[in-house]
Amino acid sequence: MIDRPFDIPSPPDPMPSRDPGASALLTDLYQLTMLQTYFEQGMTGTAVFELFFRRLPPRQRNFFVAAGLGQVLEFLEELRFQPDELQWLASTGRFTAACIDRLAGLRFTGDVWAMAEGTVFFANQPIIRVEAPLPEAQLVETRLMNILHFQSMIATKAARAVLHAPGKLLVDFGLRRAHAAEAGLYAARATYLAGMAGSATVLAGQRYGVPIFGTMAHSFIQAHDSETRAFENFARSHPDNITLLIDTYDTEAAARKIVRLAPQLAQDGIKIGAVRIDSGDLAEHAREVRRIFDEAGLPHIKIFASGGIDEFALRDLLQAKQAPIDGFGIGSGMDASYDVPTLDCAYKLQEYGGRPRRKRSEGKATWPGRKQVFRHYDGSGRMAGDVLALQSEHAAGEPLLRPVMRNGQRLGDVETLEQARGRCRADLMRLPPELAALEPSPTPYPVTVSDALKALAEACDREHASASGD
Amino acid sequence: MIDRPFDIPSPPDPMPSRDPGASALLTDLYQLTMLQTYFEQGMTGTAVFELFFRRLPPRQRNFFVAAGLGQVLEFLEELRFQPDELQWLASTGRFTAACIDRLAGLRFTGDVWAMAEGTVFFANQPIIRVEAPLPEAQLVETRLMNILHFQSMIATKAARAVLHAPGKLLVDFGLRRAHAAEAGLYAARATYLAGMAGSATVLAGQRYGVPIFGTMAHSFIQAHDSETRAFENFARSHPDNITLLIDTYDTEAAARKIVRLAPQLAQDGIKIGAVRIDSGDLAEHAREVRRIFDEAGLPHIKIFASGGIDEFALRDLLQAKQAPIDGFGIGSGMDASYDVPTLDCAYKLQEYGGRPRRKRSEGKATWPGRKQVFRHYDGSGRMAGDVLALQSEHAAGEPLLRPVMRNGQRLGDVETLEQARGRCRADLMRLPPELAALEPSPTPYPVTVSDALKALAEACDREHASASGD
Repeated sequence: MIDRPFDIPSPPDPMPSRDPGASALLTDLYQLTMLQTYFEQGMTGTAVFELFFRRLPPRQRNFFVAAGLGQVLEFLEELRFQPDELQWLASTGRFTAACIDRLAGLRFTGDVWAMAEGTVFFANQPIIRVEAPLPEAQLVETRLMNILHFQSMIATKAARAVLHAPGKLLVDFGLRRAHAAEAGLYAARATYLAGMAGSATVLAGQRYGVPIFGTMAHSFIQAHDSETRAFENFARSHPDNITLLIDTYDTEAAARKIVRLAPQLAQDGIKIGAVRIDSGDLAEHAREVRRIFDEAGLPHIKIFASGGIDEFALRDLLQAKQAPIDGFGIGSGMDASYDVPTLDCAYKLQEYGGRPRRKRSEGKATWPGRKQVFRHYDGSGRMAGDVLALQSEHAAGEPLLRPVMRNGQRLGDVETLEQARGRCRADLMRLPPELAALEPSPTPYPVTVSDALKALAEACDREHASASGD
Repeated sequence: MIDRPFDIPSPPDPMPSRDPGASALLTDLYQLTMLQTYFEQGMTGTAVFELFFRRLPPRQRNFFVAAGLGQVLEFLEELRFQPDELQWLASTGRFTAACIDRLAGLRFTGDVWAMAEGTVFFANQPIIRVEAPLPEAQLVETRLMNILHFQSMIATKAARAVLHAPGKLLVDFGLRRAHAAEAGLYAARATYLAGMAGSATVLAGQRYGVPIFGTMAHSFIQAHDSETRAFENFARSHPDNITLLIDTYDTEAAARKIVRLAPQLAQDGIKIGAVRIDSGDLAEHAREVRRIFDEAGLPHIKIFASGGIDEFALRDLLQAKQAPIDGFGIGSGMDASYDVPTLDCAYKLQEYGGRPRRKRSEGKATWPGRKQVFRHYDGSGRMAGDVLALQSEHAAGEPLLRPVMRNGQRLGDVETLEQARGRCRADLMRLPPELAALEPSPTPYPVTVSDALKALAEACDREHASASGD
């Protein structure tokens, strides 16, 4: 009707073991159709794109945390079309042979400036700037947003939880209800970056060095004919690392079974580390279980809780209810960022062929040119305000965007996840207290726009108006 | 504190091109710790697990659509631990050598029953049943949920949009704000399965045969010094397939530029197919643009709209506002299922060693045994009610779960996505009208539990009570 579907290949090639995230075809079709025109028109001058988030979700977030740059740089370094992908594109009949040839040789050769992972940022601040020949900078839009939008959204939500559960062990349990494979993997990375203790997702341990945690499922208890026997079998199988799930049938009854079991295990040098409660009134059960263990002389057994946990539940359990809970498993409330499952982010052309560009669509106008964010701190080291300015201004304050890639090659060492995590911890400690609160900050964080940037935006508008006859 | 983080390998192995979704390590750590105990205790009898959704999101969904079985069967067929994964597991110090050996030989050898993709289903109905040696059936829990939860959630949301935009071209535009790579890819598949026309995601075309659609971005217009020139360059580059984006500066002015450009292109046999509007009051702009084209003798130019579209916006634009829009691009409102970004689903042990099992945690009790869903239709072919019964009952009605895998091998031909899409279309047409509405159905769809299943649940409780002294 509007667009012509290609003939469906029969059967489609499954290629099950290739990473979809590494494919150059993981992009929007329009990127490729635009590239064909750019190639034909010789439009390969340097384009400058910036990625930013248009607004903080009103009443739901007071700040953002940048995450995902590591995966973006990997993607850019490895970007290329594979032979089977080029053949398939050709088979759709949508592209000229010349275009396919150009795609075959395409690599990312540009420069990248970015905020380091773990940096706190705000609306309309670029977190990455790509300066590259127009076709390259255009093509990568979709995947860059796909990575940075998700990881930053999750790191932001995790930071809120971390701020409101000081001293508690927070573990990502969300893989099963994350939005498919890579979301689960990236959520483990982003929540750890933001300060959580680790994840249940084993692959995040292998790929990113995220500490991994695990207990047992209800099915383990159910598969045994006796709950006590299930506890004992697990304990003897994992003597160094025992967390027992106690809510399959009756939480307090299970705790008393552990009280009876503990001395027998102790004779063999085995100590139960913790129990997990996954249902019911978590505060009430935790208090009862704590009392049972303390009265039995087992004060060392920690209590871990899961089920319906988010930053508000954490605050409620720990502050309002003073629940004696030592750690939390956080699942779908975190990995799908259920209260804010998407953010309004954009990757926009700010300059092409040496001229600043500005999108002026209703409600979606952007600031033109190559920009920088300069951050100021007060005497106690707290963030005091940012200035959104032109890169060329070299204004006062700490510049948050730094060069990370030149001519398609990474600059300096690959930053470790631990380094990013440390930066995030430092930035969260420098947040003004009203921004660290879960409630909306009564005053937004001060971000001003420099006079030079305002003047450039006006000049863009004037120039466009004078040329609008086309 | 509760659990011992392993030593972080330095640097972690990046392995960028391996598909995380195909890795046996894309699982929760507790699956592996439980397996070690199962191996040690010889607990390798046949376990029966069922996956179901606990409840329809109140007021937000009247039915579910099953999706993702194709990827589940692929995963089960290919499940194995790679040598580097086994080495890494060993290096964590968490597993015995005997356990690692067993994992090395582990394959999925079980039977699977499932609802076909595209089937409409309701709360507490199993959509898949896994019957396999306990370690195998346990291990696959995380990835099965990770696939089926997401794809079914997206297919469900897409079905609502399809039902409320009859005759309109609905295209998935959501990759950039989907939750990372696989979510974007699976969303393209699930929305097409549910009846949308296709996706902008190119990889979904190559991998799944989903029809792909694409227009142009604002950056394409901005990179040109003249909007008219941008339109003309694109048109000449893609003469068979032209959709022009007209809201970069002034939507109606852009439509008039197209009116002036069209005759020149027509001289070369080039016809503009459609325009896209992505901002502002979509109904108002569409009406104005329609009028401009109709008055200029260009009634064949279709109008495509995007930006903030979901099933409610569709209904509002098409019914309340009677907007002359022919097709829609649907992005983050669909791919992240923003109003219901997670569903409460579970994969529960229902039988082990020939004995039915029942989880009885507060608020989370399950129906035991191997179950089947029998569906009844009224005289006009509409769904009239389901019975949740034991598989062994062979009750009246259409059984919705069918065997799809035996001894780890798929039964019959691989179903095509087109077949699943056809089934979904048929099922949506058989929905009672009050369930097809966007509003909550005044009466829920009738699902009754058979007497035999109720009796079995009571027997499980009695047996457990008599054994509760452990």
